[in-house]
Amino acid sequence: MNRLQRALDALVERVDTPAPIILADVMQDNIDRMQAFATRNGLDVRPHVKTHKCVEIGRRQVKAGAVGITAGNVGEAEVFAGAGFDDIFIAYPIWAAGTKGPRIRRLAETTRLRVGVDNFAAIDALADAMGDDADRLQVVVEVDCGARRSGAPAEAAGDLATAARKRGLVPAGVFTYPGHGSSGPEARKSAAQDQEATLITAVRSLSAIGITPEVVSAGSTPTVEFATNSVITEIRPGEYVFNDLNNMRLGACTEDQIALFVAGTVVSDWVPDQVILDVGTKVLGREGSPERGYGGVAGTTAVLSKLNEYHGFLPLPSGDFSPSVGTVLPVVPNHVCPIVVNFEEYIVTDSTGTSLERWPVDARGFLN
Amino acid sequence: MNRLQRALDALVERVDTPAPIILADVMQDNIDRMQAFATRNGLDVRPHVKTHKCVEIGRRQVKAGAVGITAGNVGEAEVFAGAGFDDIFIAYPIWAAGTKGPRIRRLAETTRLRVGVDNFAAIDALADAMGDDADRLQVVVEVDCGARRSGAPAEAAGDLATAARKRGLVPAGVFTYPGHGSSGPEARKSAAQDQEATLITAVRSLSAIGITPEVVSAGSTPTVEFATNSVITEIRPGEYVFNDLNNMRLGACTEDQIALFVAGTVVSDWVPDQVILDVGTKVLGREGSPERGYGGVAGTTAVLSKLNEYHGFLPLPSGDFSPSVGTVLPVVPNHVCPIVVNFEEYIVTDSTGTSLERWPVDARGFLN
Repeated sequence: MNRLQRALDALVERVDTPAPIILADVMQDNIDRMQAFATRNGLDVRPHVKTHKCVEIGRRQVKAGAVGITAGNVGEAEVFAGAGFDDIFIAYPIWAAGTKGPRIRRLAETTRLRVGVDNFAAIDALADAMGDDADRLQVVVEVDCGARRSGAPAEAAGDLATAARKRGLVPAGVFTYPGHGSSGPEARKSAAQDQEATLITAVRSLSAIGITPEVVSAGSTPTVEFATNSVITEIRPGEYVFNDLNNMRLGACTEDQIALFVAGTVVSDWVPDQVILDVGTKVLGREGSPERGYGGVAGTTAVLSKLNEYHGFLPLPSGDFSPSVGTVLPVVPNHVCPIVVNFEEYIVTDSTGTSLERWPVDARGFLN
Repeated sequence: MNRLQRALDALVERVDTPAPIILADVMQDNIDRMQAFATRNGLDVRPHVKTHKCVEIGRRQVKAGAVGITAGNVGEAEVFAGAGFDDIFIAYPIWAAGTKGPRIRRLAETTRLRVGVDNFAAIDALADAMGDDADRLQVVVEVDCGARRSGAPAEAAGDLATAARKRGLVPAGVFTYPGHGSSGPEARKSAAQDQEATLITAVRSLSAIGITPEVVSAGSTPTVEFATNSVITEIRPGEYVFNDLNNMRLGACTEDQIALFVAGTVVSDWVPDQVILDVGTKVLGREGSPERGYGGVAGTTAVLSKLNEYHGFLPLPSGDFSPSVGTVLPVVPNHVCPIVVNFEEYIVTDSTGTSLERWPVDARGFLN
């Protein structure tokens, strides 16, 4: 990953650290490769914008062929709808209380809006919120394929769709998230198989009440290469756009496919065989563990062993890597998604480090 | 902590979740109590704004008697300086590269600005950046008292101050951070003792070159009650304004002193003895561990056992606590500081839950 250091070196005079740097050429390759994979397999791509929260990147995903976007909450959906995105799936079991009901109703006026549901009470709340416009809202039943998080049992999909239809909402299909596919390289394939089996059951449950689902939607960057179109019609990967060390360790991306890093400066070097970077939890979150570390320096074996809020502790592996105070290093995060909410904007360049644009993180802070 | 649930119940119809809720009366008590402690012990309070990043809260701290504020980076200092704060200490070993040098020079025009230094190269970079205005910048030498993070050995304080003076900067004193006082209840007092001993050595090192420090500055919420004014002149606590479960476990605050929680809604309940809240890492960060959990529900023994980005997994302790979908619960974070950068605004109420104001998180996103 010395190419990250090379791009950074070309850029470094123009950037204050810490800063998130995107290599736009690598990112575009990631977008195009995912789209090509999906097209080859007869799948739609509906990327999850939680990873980037950036309108410009969403546009590039759509331009490459994405059918729309996935959002994690109403606020994200509002930001992207405001920027002209007209096909949005909030892949979350929304509870339409407070002002969320009216906000969803407004969103459904200008976009083809789908939201997740996994229980009867939430269906009623959504229908109440939509009032006369219930038929403008498509609901997608979430089923659990093993993550033991949200999602109804696959067998319940038909009953939930029936309840939605009774209330005037439009049952559009089913979705699931194979979150248990992130626990290790072997877990990826077996979680994808669980996903497939669960979705087959859910589709049968819908067929039994006469519904042919318009969408059968599946995750995720780590599992996506095992997705098939036997029943799946759509994939919702997020992290693939940037990639990160977690996905590299899972075998879901290569080093060359990492498109985002954080530029950090060595600010102190008093402790022997250790330097301190200006990259702490307020940049990286606390993604990792003492054993695995909290992010690595590209092109080296050095990993951050500990984070405070504004400080990253970097033990120096024995050898000739001994950056002095003032050196700027490319830090590759374990998990890229938490980075973006911490910044107002991305620094966007390419692998040569010559260009420099700034793209806003449009949907940061819109958390409900 | 049922008072948190009571305040939330009074507020719940008016708030979309997830949302950070401040009880302003509890917060004001925290501010006043810290100020009274300091006054009693002849210490100045210079609260760290990293915890709240909110101009309104900073103003209340100053109104209560704080001599100024502490910031973690140049961006925070700029936001507070822009809001009229005129006495700011960036308690960080700043490296004045890129535009940071000119930004610091501009800040020093309108505020009494102090910045941390712990090495000679950084002193040169700061002096270069300040040019003819070097005498407008006060530097405070950071010394390490056992956190093994940033900070020079205490014995080096005199040499660093001498170097700063030679370059025209104004050496104002020394500071340290007893970060090793957060590892457990017993560690608090011993870290405070380390801090005291280190600062005494550092002051001697300054005296040896004829400098009587204007400021001898110490941390931190967990250790502050053991601070004395034998040499310490100033304390820089941050978390005390809100408090959190970590400080409660350390014995540094009581339950009744917790002034911030996150309102979260139960969105799914299919897994037996577990519910899912809309509170994940994009709200709480990943502060905690599988053993300790990632935050607790006030008034119960329930703790979040796992977080995804938009989902919190809440196993239900056996007993009669079994919230249904749609129930809104007060989640108390393990560590309060990472919360604030995730939101645009605080919901501010009091223990009765009747009032409702919104205060912006002014300095969020200003990370460099």
